[in-house]
Amino acid sequence: MNKAILLKNRPQGKPALSDFKITEIETPKPKVDEILLKTRYVSVDPYLRGRMRDQKSYIPPFQLNKPLESGIIAEVVASNNNNFKEGDFVNGMLQWKKYQTSDGTGLNKVDKNKAPLKAYLGILGLTGLTAYLGLEKIGKPKKGETLLVSGAAGAVGSVVGQIGKIIGCRVVGIAGSDEKINRIKKEFNFDDAINYKTTDDINKAIASKCPEGVDVYFDNVGGEILDAAMQNMNRYGRIINCGAIALYNKTEMPTGPRVEPLLIKNSLLMQGFIVRDFVKDFGPAQKQLATWMAANKLNYLETVVEGFENIPQAFIDLFDGKNKGKMIVEV
Amino acid sequence: MNKAILLKNRPQGKPALSDFKITEIETPKPKVDEILLKTRYVSVDPYLRGRMRDQKSYIPPFQLNKPLESGIIAEVVASNNNNFKEGDFVNGMLQWKKYQTSDGTGLNKVDKNKAPLKAYLGILGLTGLTAYLGLEKIGKPKKGETLLVSGAAGAVGSVVGQIGKIIGCRVVGIAGSDEKINRIKKEFNFDDAINYKTTDDINKAIASKCPEGVDVYFDNVGGEILDAAMQNMNRYGRIINCGAIALYNKTEMPTGPRVEPLLIKNSLLMQGFIVRDFVKDFGPAQKQLATWMAANKLNYLETVVEGFENIPQAFIDLFDGKNKGKMIVEV
Repeated sequence: MNKAILLKNRPQGKPALSDFKITEIETPKPKVDEILLKTRYVSVDPYLRGRMRDQKSYIPPFQLNKPLESGIIAEVVASNNNNFKEGDFVNGMLQWKKYQTSDGTGLNKVDKNKAPLKAYLGILGLTGLTAYLGLEKIGKPKKGETLLVSGAAGAVGSVVGQIGKIIGCRVVGIAGSDEKINRIKKEFNFDDAINYKTTDDINKAIASKCPEGVDVYFDNVGGEILDAAMQNMNRYGRIINCGAIALYNKTEMPTGPRVEPLLIKNSLLMQGFIVRDFVKDFGPAQKQLATWMAANKLNYLETVVEGFENIPQAFIDLFDGKNKGKMIVEV
Repeated sequence: MNKAILLKNRPQGKPALSDFKITEIETPKPKVDEILLKTRYVSVDPYLRGRMRDQKSYIPPFQLNKPLESGIIAEVVASNNNNFKEGDFVNGMLQWKKYQTSDGTGLNKVDKNKAPLKAYLGILGLTGLTAYLGLEKIGKPKKGETLLVSGAAGAVGSVVGQIGKIIGCRVVGIAGSDEKINRIKKEFNFDDAINYKTTDDINKAIASKCPEGVDVYFDNVGGEILDAAMQNMNRYGRIINCGAIALYNKTEMPTGPRVEPLLIKNSLLMQGFIVRDFVKDFGPAQKQLATWMAANKLNYLETVVEGFENIPQAFIDLFDGKNKGKMIVEV
């Protein structure tokens, strides 16, 4: 039986299960040059929240009553296309369906003998590429500099911190529980970490953990943590605006301290980072990540939820920080 | 009789004459290797407001009851230094004194036969360099792109717009009176201009004057005009945060809409620009500016106030937009 998950309502604030609809659909037959794909692993990511709004952005918004889509690892179960054969595994932006056809456009074959299939959604996929290319293209951290990372126990943040350590930075992470703080320090090799939920004054906490100031801030959260980080930036500091999960569910235009006085005073750079802007750099970046992975220099965690029907709940759980590392649904 | 102008109080909000003290001092005698300088032209600039605050910044704050300083053109009236002779003119950061000595550190000789002396404080000085290097190093405008400039009738903004036209951009300026709007279009060659004081909705006004969106925004003002510009930026847009005159006199931490969602959504770059960060590029930049000037491609305006005692008032008048172009005091 084939199924699809549709966007039923545009979420107001935090997404709810009632915003999604699971529906039975027919299993399509592959036409000439098409393949039939069986979904195996589905990536759920905070940025998908943005696509649920009806607004112009870097990718078109999801349509109501149409299937959602995200990064998916699928198995080729039938093929009329010479580039793919039964039993191949592919990675690409695919729809939230158990079965779907494709002409192969935008799909990359992945080798399950080189790395676990799930890794192609995480450390070797957009997650790892986001960490690596965000640092390389905008942050440009140098040995001896201080790198601050928010969402540090998350899929992207944990990789950012480890790359920072490989480069030779002092790396400090921010996360929302003592368990995460321990994990950051023990499993991800961060020099120090801050639990923002138990800290009275996040500004002072950063100052205390980063006594030489912050040179590069990799921001996955936005909001008040970004404000506090900005107060601690050194001259010529670089801020990678990679995510703003603190704001994604806001229903009103969020306000905060103005940034321009600090930008000018300290010659700071802030730049929005979208990994898809750097598609041409994916090849060398993946190679570097695979090399570090093979040398056991990159730990990564996954939270794997079972069952196609649980994709919406897994997505919603991201906003409560219920994932450890990359959140993946196994179908 | 020698005189100096001291900072008497740190201004609260808009600076007042009572924040300054004009005092008589002795005229110093140049020691070995020193020169005696007579102040001829004094540059007053909005950024000096920042140095009147007691806070860490890219240059140390002014000290209470000590002389202020700014860019000054002075005449060498006595010399014990082989590098300078009587009758030479020099440009440098000097104190607000009628006469002062110097060992020559940080001073550049200027040639009054190549350009009017005042031009070395404006179009060929930090003003022109700020416009040119801010665009070149951060904005990187390309032919056919849209360049938006705030403070467009001011010393920096008017040069920014003209350089944009030389590059081949569509250039739109924002200023605060119809007289300035006319000047921007007629004397500075802007394609179009917006009077923000008579515009109900600055956001819509920008959208209407920039039908293809804004690729580069050169910001001299900050505040609500920056907010509106950000709403109109194209993907991969660049914002040069050069000044924030709208905020300099604020006594409380100013707040506004958060920038991080827009930065991420449109892969925008915002960077604080301080011309002194690019000292190594001054030579070629000055040469380019002089070439354009000689080819009559750069118009510039000056407001010249007479009298050493009027330096504080000239500075205060900047915040009411009373200057046309570069504000200079002739001593």
